[in-house]
This record gives sequence, structure tokens and C-alpha cells, in this order.
Amino acid sequence: MASVAVLGAAGYAGAIAAQLLYKHPFFELSAVTARGEAGQRLDDVHPRTRVPLELEVYEAQTADAAVVAYPHGAAAPVVAELRDRGVRVVDLSADFRLRDQGLYEDWYGEHGAPRYFGQGVYGLPELTRDEVASADLVANPGCYPTAALLGLAPLARAGLIGDVVIDGKSGVSGAGRAATASTHFISADENVSPYKIKGHRHTPEIEQELSALGNDVTITFTPYLLPLAQGELVTSYVTPSREASDVEVAELFDDAYASEPFIELREGPVGVIDVRDTNYCRISWHVDPRNGRVIVFAAIDNLWKGAASQAVQNLNLMFGRPETEGLR
Amino acid sequence: MASVAVLGAAGYAGAIAAQLLYKHPFFELSAVTARGEAGQRLDDVHPRTRVPLELEVYEAQTADAAVVAYPHGAAAPVVAELRDRGVRVVDLSADFRLRDQGLYEDWYGEHGAPRYFGQGVYGLPELTRDEVASADLVANPGCYPTAALLGLAPLARAGLIGDVVIDGKSGVSGAGRAATASTHFISADENVSPYKIKGHRHTPEIEQELSALGNDVTITFTPYLLPLAQGELVTSYVTPSREASDVEVAELFDDAYASEPFIELREGPVGVIDVRDTNYCRISWHVDPRNGRVIVFAAIDNLWKGAASQAVQNLNLMFGRPETEGLR
Amino acid sequence: MASVAVLGAAGYAGAIAAQLLYKHPFFELSAVTARGEAGQRLDDVHPRTRVPLELEVYEAQTADAAVVAYPHGAAAPVVAELRDRGVRVVDLSADFRLRDQGLYEDWYGEHGAPRYFGQGVYGLPELTRDEVASADLVANPGCYPTAALLGLAPLARAGLIGDVVIDGKSGVSGAGRAATASTHFISADENVSPYKIKGHRHTPEIEQELSALGNDVTITFTPYLLPLAQGELVTSYVTPSREASDVEVAELFDDAYASEPFIELREGPVGVIDVRDTNYCRISWHVDPRNGRVIVFAAIDNLWKGAASQAVQNLNLMFGRPETEGLR
Amino acid sequence: MASVAVLGAAGYAGAIAAQLLYKHPFFELSAVTARGEAGQRLDDVHPRTRVPLELEVYEAQTADAAVVAYPHGAAAPVVAELRDRGVRVVDLSADFRLRDQGLYEDWYGEHGAPRYFGQGVYGLPELTRDEVASADLVANPGCYPTAALLGLAPLARAGLIGDVVIDGKSGVSGAGRAATASTHFISADENVSPYKIKGHRHTPEIEQELSALGNDVTITFTPYLLPLAQGELVTSYVTPSREASDVEVAELFDDAYASEPFIELREGPVGVIDVRDTNYCRISWHVDPRNGRVIVFAAIDNLWKGAASQAVQNLNLMFGRPETEGLR
Repeated sequence: MASVAVLGAAGYAGAIAAQLLYKHPFFELSAVTARGEAGQRLDDVHPRTRVPLELEVYEAQTADAAVVAYPHGAAAPVVAELRDRGVRVVDLSADFRLRDQGLYEDWYGEHGAPRYFGQGVYGLPELTRDEVASADLVANPGCYPTAALLGLAPLARAGLIGDVVIDGKSGVSGAGRAATASTHFISADENVSPYKIKGHRHTPEIEQELSALGNDVTITFTPYLLPLAQGELVTSYVTPSREASDVEVAELFDDAYASEPFIELREGPVGVIDVRDTNYCRISWHVDPRNGRVIVFAAIDNLWKGAASQAVQNLNLMFGRPETEGLR
Repeated sequence: MASVAVLGAAGYAGAIAAQLLYKHPFFELSAVTARGEAGQRLDDVHPRTRVPLELEVYEAQTADAAVVAYPHGAAAPVVAELRDRGVRVVDLSADFRLRDQGLYEDWYGEHGAPRYFGQGVYGLPELTRDEVASADLVANPGCYPTAALLGLAPLARAGLIGDVVIDGKSGVSGAGRAATASTHFISADENVSPYKIKGHRHTPEIEQELSALGNDVTITFTPYLLPLAQGELVTSYVTPSREASDVEVAELFDDAYASEPFIELREGPVGVIDVRDTNYCRISWHVDPRNGRVIVFAAIDNLWKGAASQAVQNLNLMFGRPETEGLR
Repeated sequence: MASVAVLGAAGYAGAIAAQLLYKHPFFELSAVTARGEAGQRLDDVHPRTRVPLELEVYEAQTADAAVVAYPHGAAAPVVAELRDRGVRVVDLSADFRLRDQGLYEDWYGEHGAPRYFGQGVYGLPELTRDEVASADLVANPGCYPTAALLGLAPLARAGLIGDVVIDGKSGVSGAGRAATASTHFISADENVSPYKIKGHRHTPEIEQELSALGNDVTITFTPYLLPLAQGELVTSYVTPSREASDVEVAELFDDAYASEPFIELREGPVGVIDVRDTNYCRISWHVDPRNGRVIVFAAIDNLWKGAASQAVQNLNLMFGRPETEGLR
Repeated sequence: MASVAVLGAAGYAGAIAAQLLYKHPFFELSAVTARGEAGQRLDDVHPRTRVPLELEVYEAQTADAAVVAYPHGAAAPVVAELRDRGVRVVDLSADFRLRDQGLYEDWYGEHGAPRYFGQGVYGLPELTRDEVASADLVANPGCYPTAALLGLAPLARAGLIGDVVIDGKSGVSGAGRAATASTHFISADENVSPYKIKGHRHTPEIEQELSALGNDVTITFTPYLLPLAQGELVTSYVTPSREASDVEVAELFDDAYASEPFIELREGPVGVIDVRDTNYCRISWHVDPRNGRVIVFAAIDNLWKGAASQAVQNLNLMFGRPETEGLR
């Protein structure tokens, strides 16, 4: 038994992390914190969690581990404080994902805890399982990078990505719980539009991890907002660096994922509804015989595998538990 | 040719009023005003209007008439200023709908222009056409009252309403353009819930107008928010004050509406999509043979017949134009 | 351990029943059957179930119990065959819900297994828990009756229902998996409309069970189709047979439901999203001080508490298991 | 005045064509035909059209022109019969779009009227205005090709397209009015998935027209189904054949579209809701400074500019009318 606090549990991802930990056989949800909603019960703010705990103001509560669900920038100082006290952390923000501080500053501005910069282990278990197992600070990947990297990793490891266009389609929960013009029902309903078209912050994160897999490439990544609540479909249109046959690509994907508990390799179209409210990533790929392009579809639930349930998957690894515990 | 200004044109209803007047054969849209969006073009804020005018700050612009699309309370002082200058007004707010000042204050608080209180003509053309034609200040009805009263008027005139339960189902645009917890996509999507269950302000408005039709009754009215953008379906479950046959009810509805250009009497179910983006009200009724209850369905577009296009219908009447001009 | 077959597992409710039983600690899902989809795996037809069993043609498979998810009329002969073999049955159809054969024939036509007519125990555990525990044939309630009766039972037991209007709002899954004009996305999207307005078959079912609770009443019931997948909000507008105070009504609801594991009594609005994918029923009520009417809102997931998970709740009772087993 | 019949007016696109022609100042809608719905009024089948004409069985009705809204394959013989009688035709099917018969047969099978094969003028007015003006048989473009080609034409004319990935996102109406598993509300709601991933028939059509503009290229095109009714967003990710600066690309787009009445050039994101129920195409483009890729977004309403209103635009040209008549 290990105790875990969820900081920022009033947000969508934080609430789901709390829900998963509350029912988890090994972890004990010791505290849920929030600012604006402090004093309310989590199951009043987010009824679907059915977690009857009161949201508290964060005051350095004792716990063996913490899931930090703060916005970028705000997370770093709290993570530093937790680490100073020896609390193991899974951080949902981007603050510890990048390993090049200049690059971080270009995309996010000044870092909130420079002495810890770059100390996060990138927590995409299917790719970094071993590092996560011994980590004290895990940087939980962004939602788009999760789907994009799971779809591209088998090709990247083989150095097959010559060029890639990544088209990411996300439900509205990806824009967070703040009520804004773009999260207004009337803006999103019956609509689809791209956003952050001149550069989304997940771009350097994807490139960094592709590079870590041995395939340096300057990607094109464009995200789109769709009229649905949860779900993300990421398509990677890969121009291979050399000709790649169906058979070769099939082997790469099968070798990578045949025994992965949360990867569902499929033939044909995949839809986000099929992974809704789960930690699964569904992947489908094919080679376009007309031009040799390799097209990979990867579908996740942006709040689950793209955030909260992946955090629990990481916690399982960090505490030596079965990776799937509490996630099925 | 008469010039019309639309005040509050950045809101949903104001924008549609501007769009209708911009294309109107008789009226000239002379100005569109807004606060936060002043300086932007209306077709940038609301592309679907395709009105290429710049939103201005309101400064007592000259015009023959004005459509005021301000929130309740904020409308009254501006309407008073316009009337002082002789400008004819259609006011979309509730400020001039009620005729009992005490009742107004109970539901809305202090009135912003008491010397004009009660001077609005209730502008539901199918019921008050003649009064509107000679009015200088028209109080445009609320969306729920529009549908409820059109559905109930034939029965009310015959004194047939003994008791009535009104169940109103509305799209999210009815909650306005402000980004709030309840207009967030994630709140409304895949959901339905009642709101203002202890008393919605349209209740006294409906009762006042039923009374004006000769049928005093204490209604039960409950509104619901549905996951759609525009459209309102109002069901009135009427316990008749005396037995009413199918034949009698049919006569009442046919007499009332056979020659109305914007009322579509139908048999069987009606759906809000059928009146989307129009000034039509679709009405269907039947008598439950098991208990004699008369059930009336009335479907409108809450932003059109429930607000903006009905304002234009009223303007047509006020300026002696064909009632349907610019509305088909 | 008891084996359970799900017949008609390719339908929405059948698939969820299979999913719940597949993960159930006590029951073993021994077979899933279907006609058109026989030979396919259930998790191909309904990926979200993640049940890797192949759908078979029904051939009197051996099992301790069966959940029958056939259409009305088609269910009765199969249920009879199962009962003849001693298999305990929870039937999701209406075939064994009514206890007056003439009434059944009026609403559904000839019965498919007259010798078993009327032998079903009405399986709404919160109201009929003891009868279910000793039953071999349980008639699982309809979705609207589930929500309506849970909302009305405390009042009905006190004989408080003088008259009642029931307005039922349902997601599209309630219309079943058949591709029809009314289940086409374009018909339901951005729309709301009533259906079966001259008489929905759940009407006699609700009246029968209210009568069983001691409150004979001729109800008015009208269902509506909403643009969402799962969820049902049933509002009961009750004209009480005598004046009922807030305090009295509060006592009735608290006494009835304070210790019920699947009833969530709430103050204020309730929304269907809060019970999505669960066996919970959320209930809220208030007394309209203006006319004494008692208004009750009850929200369920029509495929879960309105069908599949309630079937499992019934199975738990029939096999002496904890009522909540496998349902949280 | 010229008379126009709409054949296949019970489909989505045919109904809108009928609606536009019924209100058109020059054309007279002389007949609307359908098979299954013959005998019903069009405004009963499609209330929003408000066209009070009865659907007839097609029997070679006399008319100056016809809009044929039949499925691929079924259109050709009827178009041939119309042309034999001298009726001018706009055909919404693919039967007369391709100019290489072998290619047609590869993608669509045998052609239904070989003697007319290849005689259609491709009717994308912004690109082929002059040819349309003198045509008797116009092949109305597919919805995806309309948006893709309008977005790519300025680049193609300059020979700038070295390689292109086309990602097309469409509402469900694109799948037609047939009730199928994929048009069921439950399949599309809260979902997004690719379809026809191994080859969509619009692929050769796009390539043919790019080639006609002087830029031969083998494209990658993948379409996706989104949970909305109408609207199509097509993104073209262009790898330029040579470096292209912002300034150069801006000139290409401005030169091409500055005076086009139905093209709206925008900076920044475009959304499909902005062109809903219109003949407009909104286009936005930018050059990715990181890799030189040119990214073009084009948004249309698939049933309007992607089908019905474009057919009327073509008819206007064919009959020497102002191109925008009846379309604003």
C-alpha cells in the first residue's frame, strides 16, 4: 500500500487520476487538492468519479507519491517542493518533458524550478518502461505525443521516417475545463477547425522523443478541435526514408506491440469511441501502394491514455506493481 | 426605407437581427453596436451573418428604429434614451414585457427606467398584431413564452386551460454567448438536465399573457438544456377545464392559425430541426383519449422566432410593411 | 460460480450485459449468441466490451442462467424453452412484465409463450428485491419505467399521486441498433422530437407497477428522442392527491432510498451524464410552492440501469450474491 | 425563365438543389422526382426545404435543364436520355467527371452510357468558368475535390506541388441518406474515424484536375467521418517542388481569388460552421517556417458548395445568369 495525493484534482485529468487511484487495489488516494473548488467534494464537482473526498488547498500534504495536474509553468515549483521532501511524482504538465532548456524556454517561457530541469523521465511506458521503473520524477507525456509516438515508434526505431505530417484530431476536453470562447458549446458544436496552426507546443516534444528513438526529423504537426468530449485520433503520414514493404512494416509493428497490454493493433479504420474511458491505444497502419507512404492511425482517450490513466500506469511501474493494475 | 440600429449585435440574437436587417428589402442597417467587440467587424465575430459592418460603441446613433439586444436590466435605460429621442424600439430583453411593476421587481429586481415601465406592447404578432402595428416600443417575447403561448393561445381564448404543465427543451444558445460552466461543451455534450427548477423568469410572462387571453392559470414550467445549438421544443400538458373533443380542439387551432404565415400546424411529432434558422413555429396537438388531456407541442428556433426574426416581424408591422418581408 | 449465457449479445444492451458478466467475480460468461453477427467476435462488433468471445447461433446452450436480449415477441418462445430446461432467466423484453394478458395483447399482440405468461417477477430490485431473490424468471423493467417508478415509488406508496404527467427524454441508443430513418445521425443530430405520442408501450407497465404500490392512476407519458447516445431523464410532474409538504415528501424519499446502494438522492438539477455507464439512478425532487405540484427528476443510463446492469443486479439477487457485485 | 427538374430530390443534395431552384429568381422548379418517396411532398420528406411540390416518379418530364442527383452508375443512363432529348444537365454523380475511361472503370466499374463518356465539363466554376458557360453537360465535382482543388489550384498552376497529403474531414451527410451501420447515430456520435483508407474514389478526380492545371502529382488522400451533420474541412499538406516564400504564395492566392464571389480568403484557422448552408469556400494557408511546407485549409458545406449550390452556380453560368443569382 502506498499513499498518493492528486494535486489539481478539479481539472478533467486530475479528477480521473483520483478516480482511478481511489479504486486502485494498491494505492490509497490520500488527498485531492484544488484551489477554486476547495471545500467541495470531488464527486460534487465531478460526479462520474464517485470519489467522496473533499478537495483541499494544497499544503504540502504527506504522501508516498503525487500526481500533479497543474498547468504548465505552475507545476514546476510544486514538483520541486515535493521532490525536496522525497515524494515521488508523476507530473502531467510539460515542465519536465523537454531535455533542452533553451527549447523549453522558446516554447513555454522561463522554467519554474531550474534546478530540477531535465530530471524527469519521459513516462511513455511502452517506450521507456525501464527508466520509469526506477524514476522518482516522471514527466507524463502530452496527449498528442502519446498517440503520435506510439504510432511512429516502430518506424522510428528502424530509422524509416524520412518526413512526416501529423494530423491530430481531438475532443474538446483537451482544451481544459476553463470556460472560454473556444470551449463554448456553440463554438465547437457542428464545427471542426485547426488551432495553434503556427506551432503547437507538442511539436518539440514529439521531435525530441523521435530523436531519442534514433530518427531525427523535423515534423509538421497540426491539431484540430472536434465536436466530441473525449478522444484523440492522430494520423501520421510518413514518407519513408527508403522503400518499405508491407511485410517489413508489419514485422516492425508486431515486434513492438504484440505483447503490449495496452496496445491494440488493428487492420482497417480505428475510431476513438473504441478506446473511450480506457488506457488503450488502438493502432492501424497501411502502406499506400501508389506512392509508398506509410500511414499510421493511433486512437486514444486524451484524458486517459493521454493523461490520467497513463499516470497510473507509470505509478504502477514506479512502485513495482503489475503494469495493468487498476486499469482494466 | 427606414434605418435601424442593432444594439448589442455581438450577442447571438443581436447578430441574427443584424443579418436579417442587412439583407432586408426595406430596412437599412445603419449601425451595429457592442462593447467588448467594438472595432471588430460583425462578420469576423459572427461569420455566418456576412455583415461587413464594424461594431461601434453605442453613442446615441441616429436611426428610425432600434433593436435592443441587451441583458435584462441593462436594456431599460438605453431604451428610455432611445424613446426620448423618438426612436422606435423593439427590445429583446424582459424589461418591458411585464405590466405589473411589483411582479417585475420580484423576478428581475429594480427597473432601470420606471417612467417607461409598462409602456411596451407585447410583440407576439400572431396574438397582438394590431397593437404592434401602432406601437413605438415593442417588448419582444421570451423564447419559451413565444412557443408556449403560440401553442396554448387557441385553448386559452376558449378558457379551456384548467391546469398546465409546460416542459421546455432548449438548445445551448439560449444560455447566451458568455463562456460559463454550463455553456462549456463538456457540460452540455451528451447531457440533458433541468435548470432554474425553482422558478424561471418566463413563468410570470406566460401567465400574464394567458390571462390577457382570458385564461387565468398558475402554470408549472420547467426548462431543460439539451446538447444542440439552436432550437426549442415546448410541450404543454393541459388538463382542460371541461371535456374537450378532438373536433373542438381542431377547430380552435384551425381557426387561430389557418392563415398565419409563420405557423405550421402539423399532425404527429414535430422536431426543432425543421424550423432551424427560420421564423416558423411548428405546432402539433392531440387529445389523450385515456384521460382527456390536451397535449400541445410547439417547436421554434429560440434565436429566430424566439428572438431575432420575431423582432424583424415586429418591425415589419410597426412600419406598415408586409409581415413576412425579409423573413423567407 | 454460475454460468450465464447472453442471448442477443450483438444488441446494445446484450453487449453490455456480456461485458459486465465477463468481468464479474462470480458469474462466468459461458456463451454469447447472435444471428446476423454469428461467427464474429463480440469485441469486433462492440469493441468497448473487450469481450473476446465469438458470437454463436443460439442452440439451447447449457448454462445456469441466461440473459435474454431479444425484441418483444421474439423473446417469449426462447424464454419458455430455457425455463423448460430449468435455466434461470432475466428477460430484457416486455414479454413477461405485464400481468394482464388482455392488456399485453392490446399493446404487443399475441404472446409467444402463453403458458408462461404472467410468471415473470418484475425485476426492479429497489421495489421488488425479495421477489427477485426467489425468482426463476425475472422480467427486467423497461428503461422509462425504471426511471419513472424509482422517482414515483415513495409517493405512490403513500398514495400521494393524484395525477401525473411523465415526460421522458432519451438518448438514441434507446431506439436500438437497427439502422432506420430515425436512428440516422442526420435525423437525431441537433434535433429533439417526441415519438409514439399516441401511446408508448411503457405506459401500461408504469401504471401496473404504480398500482402494485397501491396508487391507481391513469398517467400521461410522452417520450422524446435527444441527440445523445446513452442517458434518460424522466420528469414526473405529480399533482398530489392531497397537500404534501416539503418535509413530508423529504421523509418519503429518505425512508425509501437512504440505504439503497444505487440510488443517489440529490438536491437541485440532475443530468444524465452523471450516471453514464453506471447502474445508478439519480433522483431529485421539489415541491412547487406556487401550486403544490411535486416534481421528480430521475436520471439513468438507459442501457445500464435501464437494461443491462439492472439485469446483472437481478442476477446477483437471484444467486444470493451481494447486490452490487460486479457493478461498481 | 428556364424550367429545371431535379431528379433524385429525396436525397440530401437533391433536396437542397430543389430548395434553391424553387426560390431562384430565374429558374422555375418544374418537377422533383424520387422513387421510394414518390407521392409524398418534398416538404414532408425534407421540411427545411419548404418546397410544397409532390415527388414524382421520373418519366422523362419536359424541362430546359435537369439536376441529376442519382448515385454513381445509376446517373449515366438517365443523363444520356436527357441529353438525347436536348435537356441540359448538371450531374451530381461521378459518372461524367473522369476523362479516362479505363480509370473510371478501375474505380467505379462499367460505365452506364459509354457514348457520352468524357463529354461532361468539370463544373468547378472558379477553375472552369468559361467551359461551363458553353456546356450542355456539366459534371458537378465531388465534395472533397471541390475543397481540395480550390485550396490547391493557385499552387498547382505555378507547378509548386511536389508532393501533397490531403486530409479530409467530413460531416455525416456526406455518407448519404441511406440508414446504414456507419450513419447510425451511435456509430458517429462522439467518434472520429477514417474510412475508405485503401483508396477513396475522389483520389483520381483530384489528380486529374491537378494535372489539368499543369501539376502532375500522385496524392495521398484520406477521408474521416466526424460527428456533425454538414461541413467539410480539407487540409492539404504540400511539400513544394521548390522553395516558396510567404510573399510568393500570398500573391498566388490573392491573384486567384481576390475577385471570386464565393471564395473567402482568411488568415488563421477556418471552421466549417462558418460556411454552413452556403456556397462559400473559406481558405486559409500558411508556410511552415520550420520545413517550408505549405499548409492549406479549405472549408465548405459538403451538401452546398460540395454539391447542390455548386450545381446552381453551374446552372447560372450555363444560362448566362449572374453567377451568384439565388445563392446569397
